[in-house]
Amino acid sequence: MQELIKVAVDAMGGDHAPSEIVKGAVEAVNSQEQVKVILVGRESAVQAELQKYQYDASRVEVVNATEIIEMAEPPVQAIRMKKDSSIVVAMKMVKNGEAEAFVGAGSTGAVLVGGQVIVGRIKGVERPPLAPLLPTEKGASLLIDCGANVDARPSHLVQFAKMGSIYMEHVMGVKNPRVAIVNIGAEEEKGNALVKETFPLLKECKELNFIGSIEARDIPSGYADVIVCEAFAGNIILKLYEGVGSTLISMVKKGMMTNLRSKTGALLVKPALKETLKRFDTSQYGGAPLLGLKGLVVKTHGSSKAVEVRNSILQCVTFTQQQMNEKIKAGIQVNENQEGNGSHGI
Amino acid sequence: MQELIKVAVDAMGGDHAPSEIVKGAVEAVNSQEQVKVILVGRESAVQAELQKYQYDASRVEVVNATEIIEMAEPPVQAIRMKKDSSIVVAMKMVKNGEAEAFVGAGSTGAVLVGGQVIVGRIKGVERPPLAPLLPTEKGASLLIDCGANVDARPSHLVQFAKMGSIYMEHVMGVKNPRVAIVNIGAEEEKGNALVKETFPLLKECKELNFIGSIEARDIPSGYADVIVCEAFAGNIILKLYEGVGSTLISMVKKGMMTNLRSKTGALLVKPALKETLKRFDTSQYGGAPLLGLKGLVVKTHGSSKAVEVRNSILQCVTFTQQQMNEKIKAGIQVNENQEGNGSHGI
Repeated sequence: MQELIKVAVDAMGGDHAPSEIVKGAVEAVNSQEQVKVILVGRESAVQAELQKYQYDASRVEVVNATEIIEMAEPPVQAIRMKKDSSIVVAMKMVKNGEAEAFVGAGSTGAVLVGGQVIVGRIKGVERPPLAPLLPTEKGASLLIDCGANVDARPSHLVQFAKMGSIYMEHVMGVKNPRVAIVNIGAEEEKGNALVKETFPLLKECKELNFIGSIEARDIPSGYADVIVCEAFAGNIILKLYEGVGSTLISMVKKGMMTNLRSKTGALLVKPALKETLKRFDTSQYGGAPLLGLKGLVVKTHGSSKAVEVRNSILQCVTFTQQQMNEKIKAGIQVNENQEGNGSHGI
Repeated sequence: MQELIKVAVDAMGGDHAPSEIVKGAVEAVNSQEQVKVILVGRESAVQAELQKYQYDASRVEVVNATEIIEMAEPPVQAIRMKKDSSIVVAMKMVKNGEAEAFVGAGSTGAVLVGGQVIVGRIKGVERPPLAPLLPTEKGASLLIDCGANVDARPSHLVQFAKMGSIYMEHVMGVKNPRVAIVNIGAEEEKGNALVKETFPLLKECKELNFIGSIEARDIPSGYADVIVCEAFAGNIILKLYEGVGSTLISMVKKGMMTNLRSKTGALLVKPALKETLKRFDTSQYGGAPLLGLKGLVVKTHGSSKAVEVRNSILQCVTFTQQQMNEKIKAGIQVNENQEGNGSHGI
């Protein structure tokens, strides 16, 4: 029998905790026999949810944690003070090797801080980037970085490109992923100071399939597999993607309800349209990994329902099976030796 | 009789020049009796297009310019070398007072450089921002800055906020426009170094209705009237807006063509949907003004058709009638006196 892959899940994080989190965890266990889920949170609340389902009890464990980090709390302080919070307890299990991965839908700030402070960075990784998958016309692209560490340096972006490329190749199965840097024009001489400094460094990386700049307009068409940017720009891209998407879809729906004729038409197009728009739905990909840590940390949307929680847990299985952290370690060390750059600042 | 407002139009710029440019100019003249259009470009080509239409000949003038600045040319060099290009000749007319405004669909870089170098900045304006209108669920918001001057300073952003607020109030008729700064979270302590420095400066501006941060997700819903950011972020927002919008609309259209049932439905919903999506079409607003110059410079999309050219020309009429430059001058001077800041660097 193969060894189980253990995923510690914050049962108390997100808008629909604990019900949807527990449901998603059970669905993951029932659909993948190699995964064991450790639900961390208020034991009585978690057990009450678990009673609703049928599952292999040997692969679901509950670990009690009495505190909850709220969305609005300052993350650094919360991680430091709330030692018995579900996030801190679950992350410590990853640190201590009791779990391979963490999945959480709670405060993004707390997950990012906890990942760095508790789980810790792989040696050589300067900054762990948060890297969600964006749906595109052709499938999905990895947007790296969307985290909380703004004002990045060129060396950070080069590492993001390497980690993102490794992720797309081994977790998503994209051969020779196309890597591009977000810019305001296609020409090499365009861009802000950060992009201008980073561009030639990326060109030098022989292990990358660097295809140059990508304008934001070309992201939705799937022009690149790995989209490199600093976190402030990444945050704008991620959130505008969701914002324009949901506004347009709601406008399309309202537009169809204008009159009797259009309402009749709406009934007829609905099934086909639903299928099409599903491809533009971010929840199918699970959460965003925080790459470059000693264990895997996955942040799912605060609004996650069971399906996203399940997909996030399953993503951890592929990540672990592919020995991603070994590959990232090897990829980053190449960089260190080549450039003699050993700076490890946050 | 009121004096005519003279708009110098680059007849040779954009994907559909000169045909759509000339057509849009004629439409503007025919729909607004106070405007006079000066078409600048190759005289024979422009005259050949003009022959197709009926119009008041006293309000359409053709000025010959033998050269054309191509899209790919380095802007600074092009403006310097091509003295007889349509952009340079038209902008010189604005500088010399022979026209109040310039409208062009050609190279963005050349229009921005020409605006600064030939038309020149209003005294006190540190950087002229390019400010397009974004369609939202509620109407339109001004995105300021989307220009080519990246890596802005806090004082630039404060001026952008002031100029944008004046524009929305007097050209778009929005009372007490809500001004917000693009950020990665709603809290004041969030953001990159630039945003953190700018935020308290905006709070201090009593003449602004500053409502704090805006996350990119909330832009499409129309949460703010004036959206302040530096040009790199602005460029991402503008282009992603267009990219996600066109990808989603093409997916919706394709989705409706999936099978016979959905195709029948598509025929029924089409008119209502078309009306709805028109509200999300940027061309209805004309081009983006480059604010803070001694004359008005408007950049329209490279892909502009006649309707966008016409709207851009009509926008110049409102701008001039509202004495926008006098208002911007007054707004910026308040700033200068208050802060004793007279730096005029590009």
